[in-house]
Amino acid sequence: MPTSNTPEKGRDERGKLLFTPGPLTTSRTVKDAMRVDLGSRDATFLEVVRSIRRRLLAIDGLSQEAGYEAVLVQGSGTFGLESVVGSVVPATGKLLVVVNGAYGARIAHMARVLKIATEEQTCAENETPDLADLERRLTADPSITHVFVVQCETTTGILNPTREIGEIVKRHGKVYCVDAMSSFGAIPAQMAASHVDFLVSSANKCIEGVPGFAFVLARREALLAIAGNARSLSLDLLAQWKGLEQNGQFRFTPPTHALLAFHQALVELEAEGGAAARGARYANNHRVLAEEMGRLGFTPYLPADRQSFIITSYYYPEDPQFDFEAFYSRLSDLDYVIYPGKLSKADCFRIGNIGQIFPDDIRGLAAAIAETLEAMGVAALAR
Amino acid sequence: MPTSNTPEKGRDERGKLLFTPGPLTTSRTVKDAMRVDLGSRDATFLEVVRSIRRRLLAIDGLSQEAGYEAVLVQGSGTFGLESVVGSVVPATGKLLVVVNGAYGARIAHMARVLKIATEEQTCAENETPDLADLERRLTADPSITHVFVVQCETTTGILNPTREIGEIVKRHGKVYCVDAMSSFGAIPAQMAASHVDFLVSSANKCIEGVPGFAFVLARREALLAIAGNARSLSLDLLAQWKGLEQNGQFRFTPPTHALLAFHQALVELEAEGGAAARGARYANNHRVLAEEMGRLGFTPYLPADRQSFIITSYYYPEDPQFDFEAFYSRLSDLDYVIYPGKLSKADCFRIGNIGQIFPDDIRGLAAAIAETLEAMGVAALAR
Repeated sequence: MPTSNTPEKGRDERGKLLFTPGPLTTSRTVKDAMRVDLGSRDATFLEVVRSIRRRLLAIDGLSQEAGYEAVLVQGSGTFGLESVVGSVVPATGKLLVVVNGAYGARIAHMARVLKIATEEQTCAENETPDLADLERRLTADPSITHVFVVQCETTTGILNPTREIGEIVKRHGKVYCVDAMSSFGAIPAQMAASHVDFLVSSANKCIEGVPGFAFVLARREALLAIAGNARSLSLDLLAQWKGLEQNGQFRFTPPTHALLAFHQALVELEAEGGAAARGARYANNHRVLAEEMGRLGFTPYLPADRQSFIITSYYYPEDPQFDFEAFYSRLSDLDYVIYPGKLSKADCFRIGNIGQIFPDDIRGLAAAIAETLEAMGVAALAR
Repeated sequence: MPTSNTPEKGRDERGKLLFTPGPLTTSRTVKDAMRVDLGSRDATFLEVVRSIRRRLLAIDGLSQEAGYEAVLVQGSGTFGLESVVGSVVPATGKLLVVVNGAYGARIAHMARVLKIATEEQTCAENETPDLADLERRLTADPSITHVFVVQCETTTGILNPTREIGEIVKRHGKVYCVDAMSSFGAIPAQMAASHVDFLVSSANKCIEGVPGFAFVLARREALLAIAGNARSLSLDLLAQWKGLEQNGQFRFTPPTHALLAFHQALVELEAEGGAAARGARYANNHRVLAEEMGRLGFTPYLPADRQSFIITSYYYPEDPQFDFEAFYSRLSDLDYVIYPGKLSKADCFRIGNIGQIFPDDIRGLAAAIAETLEAMGVAALAR
């Protein structure tokens, strides 16, 4: 098992830094933890898995003793979401998805593919959900059994009020599921206080592991209640948990190397001071980014009070010389990788603040953006 | 992109060698290919994915020009199988699974979870399927639309006659799916000659990558015919292919590091001389294993003519002093990791011949087994 808890900072062998919401820039030590081949029933590996499951719960102040469980699911974050949607909602259930971005919309789409009765409460991508509307819907339609919401909509970077939504969902006695994909490990989940029954996130976000699996944190009582609901073998959440509990093993081949990297990432998260310290670092990254981008004249898509520190969307410069693909490629050639937009109604690009990136890296990115705009002949934006 | 094509042989940092059917011992250079963080739409990464898809087809002498496609699916091999079972068989279809081991049985179970009409043609785990029985079933039940068989049943190591089965399936006009999980890259698949429409394997088997994704090779015409059948968003095979074709990207976060390792593994496979050379190396591993284990007095579960060179099942010694878990642990302490049995009716353990293991390693394993048996007080087995 990896023992170092001091991340080695620095760029990878190519020198590129990722300002993307995962895969992101991980520490050298996280990547180096993958230089071992472990058998899937090896004692060291099983201890790594046990440790990961315990540490994941501890991030949110939870434990098995307190009635919570951590389940690891192979695949990307979307696979983790589908393991919840498809395993949790019974055939007779109805899912209400609170949508203000592409990731919420994807959950609703996924549920319909699984032939689950589904309703969306949709608001604009730059607005947080109307809580009174949620209250009305739950009152008007008692057939709704489950509510799903995305905590930080990576589409824009907007932060949704999962705690306030949880109060309403709980009052109506519904099962509450939260997609904390891009927020878990940096923004408090507060599962217990927010009445969250199932929470989904993935290895390659704020915990700064490499992609390869997702994880689900669940209130044990809610987890045990889903027996018989699964619509898939691979994505059967309860069976996956039972397998992990029974002999510590995955039912099907685990991504051993990604799990070793994740274990190291959890050790490094704790060494950094836990989720609060990581959140503070990202918030500082975001503050520097906002300053630098403001100085360059870029306008953020979201008002500051709805903006998370995870990822920020910026409007394209209003200049016909600006072309996103060229902008992206030139920045990548300068070793700065940004992220395209995903908005339905506005031309934006996105810059992530998460991963092994630090204020100086962000100042470097801003300098590269200035250089790139000049090279593209885009007029100076600064007002 | 990684450029080295000379694998660095040798044990990992722990010194353990895996005689398991995946995860297995990979080369140091394959593991080192993971020391880079790539964005999921990075040009280098997209070229890696394109190259992987092309090289996978080339292993079986296929290409897009010849009408075949390679689709990569996040998760373990089972996820790849479910992406085929759940996306290929229509709601009105019926699947016949040819079963002589746990992996065939799992395909049938998976299909039933997906509510697909399913029938098994089952024979003993040490026998190959009765071709006349298959012929009779397909004649008697025209509602059968799809046939699935495992090429090398990792339960025992038995090699099934996929080509002969393909002749029959083709004659009856059914869709033919082959689970080549533990065989692809070392045992010829011969998709075209065997009339295989869909073939599934995974990253951490004979190509000697690390676990994290599966792949499906498909006859394009058969692939295009499955529109509307998918029962899942994450495991929608056609949508996954369309995504890869459209912009070269995965629909959902790809396991970038595992893909980099796999690309390096493919380069090393070609440097070794391709699948034929790799098969020859494994066959030699198997020959040395059979000699050494025979000398120690172990009896293989399968007769030699049905035994593949991928993995071999051996009966437990008939001695009350023998305890598998103790045997396994002691061998692991000596840095040799073997695999438990999975047979329904016989007490066996398994030894894999695949991965970066060589005849001297197998002789070392045999010496460790002899030492372990003596330490356990198991009577000398040699006859």
